[in-house]
Amino acid sequence: MTKIDHVAIKSSNISRDTQWYSQEFGLEVTYQDETWALLESSTCFLALVTPGQHPAHVSFLMEGEPPHDALKHRDGTFSKYGNDLSGNIVEYLWRNDSVK
Amino acid sequence: MTKIDHVAIKSSNISRDTQWYSQEFGLEVTYQDETWALLESSTCFLALVTPGQHPAHVSFLMEGEPPHDALKHRDGTFSKYGNDLSGNIVEYLWRNDSVK
Repeated sequence: MTKIDHVAIKSSNISRDTQWYSQEFGLEVTYQDETWALLESSTCFLALVTPGQHPAHVSFLMEGEPPHDALKHRDGTFSKYGNDLSGNIVEYLWRNDSVK
Repeated sequence: MTKIDHVAIKSSNISRDTQWYSQEFGLEVTYQDETWALLESSTCFLALVTPGQHPAHVSFLMEGEPPHDALKHRDGTFSKYGNDLSGNIVEYLWRNDSVK
């Protein structure tokens, strides 16, 4: 069964909202800069994203090799974006340790 | 550390989108009617919700007793809705087995 890796929601102030989610729900801050943040819960991650920098989306961790047209990120992950049939953005994500 | 229980995203056709997420990502359908659906991944759940019936939100599984003003749902869970500082809707959720 595929894992939901993270859900990304919009934030108008990454620093402020990172602190709020950390305090309100005890999430641990995995990464934070001015354009986005990643917070860890014991199930999936919560990402905070700045409108115009990254889209709000739900990210699914895929198995196997990423396709050749997948985008390689600086942290070594690969991803592709798509849309579901209601127009929500979904991310297909391949992490280092899931790439054979 | 708090668990993200589920993420709920909008759907203009619950039946069609439930089938799509099930086929595209191998999620298992836990519940489905005409107004919403719940699909299981190996981390958090994905909920599909009809605009006007339920808001899109991220749901956090809380520990301890639900507050007295929490809403009791037919399945025995309790919840409250709130907003983060960027206007996203968050749900505080208490499940039967997490209520002491």
